[in-house]
Amino acid sequence: MTRAKTVIDTTGDWDPYARGCPSRELLDQIGSKWAVLVLGELGKHGPCRFSGLRQRLDGVSEKMLTQTLRTLERDGLVRRTVHPEVPPRVEYGLTPLGQTLREPLKALTDWSVRHIPDVLQARAEYDTRTG
Amino acid sequence: MTRAKTVIDTTGDWDPYARGCPSRELLDQIGSKWAVLVLGELGKHGPCRFSGLRQRLDGVSEKMLTQTLRTLERDGLVRRTVHPEVPPRVEYGLTPLGQTLREPLKALTDWSVRHIPDVLQARAEYDTRTG
Repeated sequence: MTRAKTVIDTTGDWDPYARGCPSRELLDQIGSKWAVLVLGELGKHGPCRFSGLRQRLDGVSEKMLTQTLRTLERDGLVRRTVHPEVPPRVEYGLTPLGQTLREPLKALTDWSVRHIPDVLQARAEYDTRTG
Repeated sequence: MTRAKTVIDTTGDWDPYARGCPSRELLDQIGSKWAVLVLGELGKHGPCRFSGLRQRLDGVSEKMLTQTLRTLERDGLVRRTVHPEVPPRVEYGLTPLGQTLREPLKALTDWSVRHIPDVLQARAEYDTRTG
């Protein structure tokens, strides 16, 4: 299944197992750590400025955060609002579509926090075994 | 928060928002498309050989699938079993820990299949607007 980027299929036979199906790349994007952390933060604490997000996502580079926000905005998950003040205040917040991702992403984040000790244990055992 | 890879914290203060916390990289790994698709396939249809997985994940390279399986095995999510036959049969299946990821990853995959039309629409609008 190969589709041009702007062709919109309404028949609903999207399949991330099929090569070229855009749902596969979308899966990759929404599951990337920076996207998960940005969406999680905006979902939990509401609209936020770039500088606030950068502070919250400890260690993210300016370039990476800019790129992540642009991708999320283009995908319709985040809305960029310019408030007409002097100087103009720019805020990022979730769109209604972005809101629908909150629960699945929270489940993923919770899993990784809950199970990281098991994973570290498994890694240590694997490394000992394969030495 | 910086931790050596093999230090296992039992206090439970893991935080993917903190730089260097291994739960952040774990989040990235479990949300990557190939990991999601491998775990999804093994969860749905049970243990599978390398060749079967490669066929199912349309377009995955041998190298990428090998690397994905090794990471998942090291993380304790997938078990590699060698059946003592002639020739030996090697199968990959979910561990009990891997099973606990099925639901969160299914929710993510379902979201991307359900909402890819909305995302494609948003992208087309964004490109027109910023064009």
